[in-house]
Amino acid sequence: MPSGTAYFDNAATTMTLPEVAEAMRPYFTEMYGNPSSLHSMGADAAEALRKARKSVADALGCYPSEIIFTAGGTESDNMAVLGTFPGAGGRVVTTAIEHSAILETCGEVRRRGGASTLIPVDSEGFLDLSALDSAMGDDVYLVSVMAANNVIGTIEDIRECAKIAHEHGALFHTDAVQGFTKMDINVKRDGIDMLSLSGHKIHGPKGIGAFYVKSGTDIRPIVFGGGQENGLRSSTENVPGIVGLGKAVDIAMSNMGGDMRRMTEMRDRIIDSVLDIPGAALNGPRHDRLCNNAHFRFDGVKGNSLVLALSRNGVAVSTASACSAGDTEPSHVLSAIGLTPQQSMSALRVTLSHLNTDAEVDLLLKVLPDAVRECRV
Amino acid sequence: MPSGTAYFDNAATTMTLPEVAEAMRPYFTEMYGNPSSLHSMGADAAEALRKARKSVADALGCYPSEIIFTAGGTESDNMAVLGTFPGAGGRVVTTAIEHSAILETCGEVRRRGGASTLIPVDSEGFLDLSALDSAMGDDVYLVSVMAANNVIGTIEDIRECAKIAHEHGALFHTDAVQGFTKMDINVKRDGIDMLSLSGHKIHGPKGIGAFYVKSGTDIRPIVFGGGQENGLRSSTENVPGIVGLGKAVDIAMSNMGGDMRRMTEMRDRIIDSVLDIPGAALNGPRHDRLCNNAHFRFDGVKGNSLVLALSRNGVAVSTASACSAGDTEPSHVLSAIGLTPQQSMSALRVTLSHLNTDAEVDLLLKVLPDAVRECRV
Repeated sequence: MPSGTAYFDNAATTMTLPEVAEAMRPYFTEMYGNPSSLHSMGADAAEALRKARKSVADALGCYPSEIIFTAGGTESDNMAVLGTFPGAGGRVVTTAIEHSAILETCGEVRRRGGASTLIPVDSEGFLDLSALDSAMGDDVYLVSVMAANNVIGTIEDIRECAKIAHEHGALFHTDAVQGFTKMDINVKRDGIDMLSLSGHKIHGPKGIGAFYVKSGTDIRPIVFGGGQENGLRSSTENVPGIVGLGKAVDIAMSNMGGDMRRMTEMRDRIIDSVLDIPGAALNGPRHDRLCNNAHFRFDGVKGNSLVLALSRNGVAVSTASACSAGDTEPSHVLSAIGLTPQQSMSALRVTLSHLNTDAEVDLLLKVLPDAVRECRV
Repeated sequence: MPSGTAYFDNAATTMTLPEVAEAMRPYFTEMYGNPSSLHSMGADAAEALRKARKSVADALGCYPSEIIFTAGGTESDNMAVLGTFPGAGGRVVTTAIEHSAILETCGEVRRRGGASTLIPVDSEGFLDLSALDSAMGDDVYLVSVMAANNVIGTIEDIRECAKIAHEHGALFHTDAVQGFTKMDINVKRDGIDMLSLSGHKIHGPKGIGAFYVKSGTDIRPIVFGGGQENGLRSSTENVPGIVGLGKAVDIAMSNMGGDMRRMTEMRDRIIDSVLDIPGAALNGPRHDRLCNNAHFRFDGVKGNSLVLALSRNGVAVSTASACSAGDTEPSHVLSAIGLTPQQSMSALRVTLSHLNTDAEVDLLLKVLPDAVRECRV
């Protein structure tokens, strides 16, 4: 961690662990073969892919052959929505609080002659399951519900969502980019047909993700070429990135219980302390909330100003999601839970990693009240 | 380079230079911010992107705002063909010897109600320019011609192709994945509207590429989400990969003249020597050929067996392209230059890097004649 920065923006991206960077290193400068090559260096690279694929599959409870490596969570989400789109008339049902990688891709479905339905959430971000059930119909090819929300940390009941999807003959996809390694997921037990995850949210490298797709699912590629990844994702495989993802998954899964407890403690300490600041309120639930997410609003404060004030004090946080940082529009997630535009623009997101220290939490809690006062207009 | 392997498969992938890996290193474990984040670590990451974008733009002779970072050459090719597709009735004109990232994407154009025309090449792989001209029509939205062929190294006259495309109101794209840094390319001078390049073919990392698209070009994204890369390529930017690509470009461009001379010398020595082997013939031209490509066929030899025999002798080569390695079908490139299936299956591709040594060339030339004899059936 760079000296002087207490990094609390782990939902935006995480530090690649030194052990992960070290695992990747030889694949840049020594074992750099193309996994498709017939010679021994190609075989070495192919073996590295095999090993990483098994790590990801073991973490999700599926077969290695059901894992496709992608460039990241966004590409995985696009594969789920567009790769299974049956053509004009097909409808995707999703939530009002999905990441833009799902919502914008639903826009493409509509441009291709399909339709999309957004299911509302309650004031804590929990999906309205009866609204989901009512929205289903014969035209629905896919239900996509995120495992946990990237802004307010709400953990959705994806097992129930999968059940509803299947009762109506639709596939079920979950964007687990934020939830993976921070909540209990088993794709077979939970009835998940497709799942998206990202390396850089779990202390792996940027530019790599994975896509689980249940064996036998009717899916077409969205990028075309050499036919790598079982024909579903053409491009020379990003061997160092894949090795890094595999290593990050191994580390995260083997420490998952302890890391979750540690983050939950820090999270609850932060929430309890911040709620003592006059005019502060929590967004999202107290229970069924990601162990690393705390999200607040502060009466009469501009969130962007608060982020910059904290940055000057060596604390890195965000307002809503990194993808919308700098936006002048309120977060669609905060609108969906019923916040006014003014409340939405006063938001602060604190997202933890197991690497955060108590001293960093102390620093955050020390500088935040003053920063809030300073930014109150 | 791993001890014991003389690596002559640089068209499949190259070693990431130690200087490139070193430039990437701090962006994994220290400066790991999300470029979209408002805080100082986000700003540091955004600055790294800015610098790398300028390196790529300078190398191509365009503006930084015309460079989009992608996951690789395949994604860039897909953007060119699908991102500019105007809808049913649109036609793409390309060559019979393009990479599968173009040819398979033309298949998607046809599935979407468009059309595609493949222009033939002569026995050395040069495009038939009059056939290109004749194939043009009002329905053609795009002409895509590779700068240099990945199998036989033929350098196409892309300036003339661009001229023909523009005379008929079409856009011109070139897949420069193999040509970039190994031939003289200037997108403004050459009239190129879009260009694809890849990091791992120029001693940068795998999993990163760039796409040049001329300012004002009517293009839509093919992957949807957070709107990064000027709205054209959503996904958290692969900061270490982009930094590595920028560094690899800087190094390659500053040494380009000397590296090209050195590779040309090795290439010509290999060609002259291999043609002395009984039953050997060169595929592709002697002139207007990539400085790092030598491609042969050997009467009565199975190319795959030859690759494996050479691998056992510590020499890494391929038959045609890595993407088709292991295929039991003849390369479409070799069919297009008029080789019989039997001739195609007897092929050997030797592709150089400036890192190759004379001693490695000696080794190749020493073991090859015996390997050919051994594999002759």
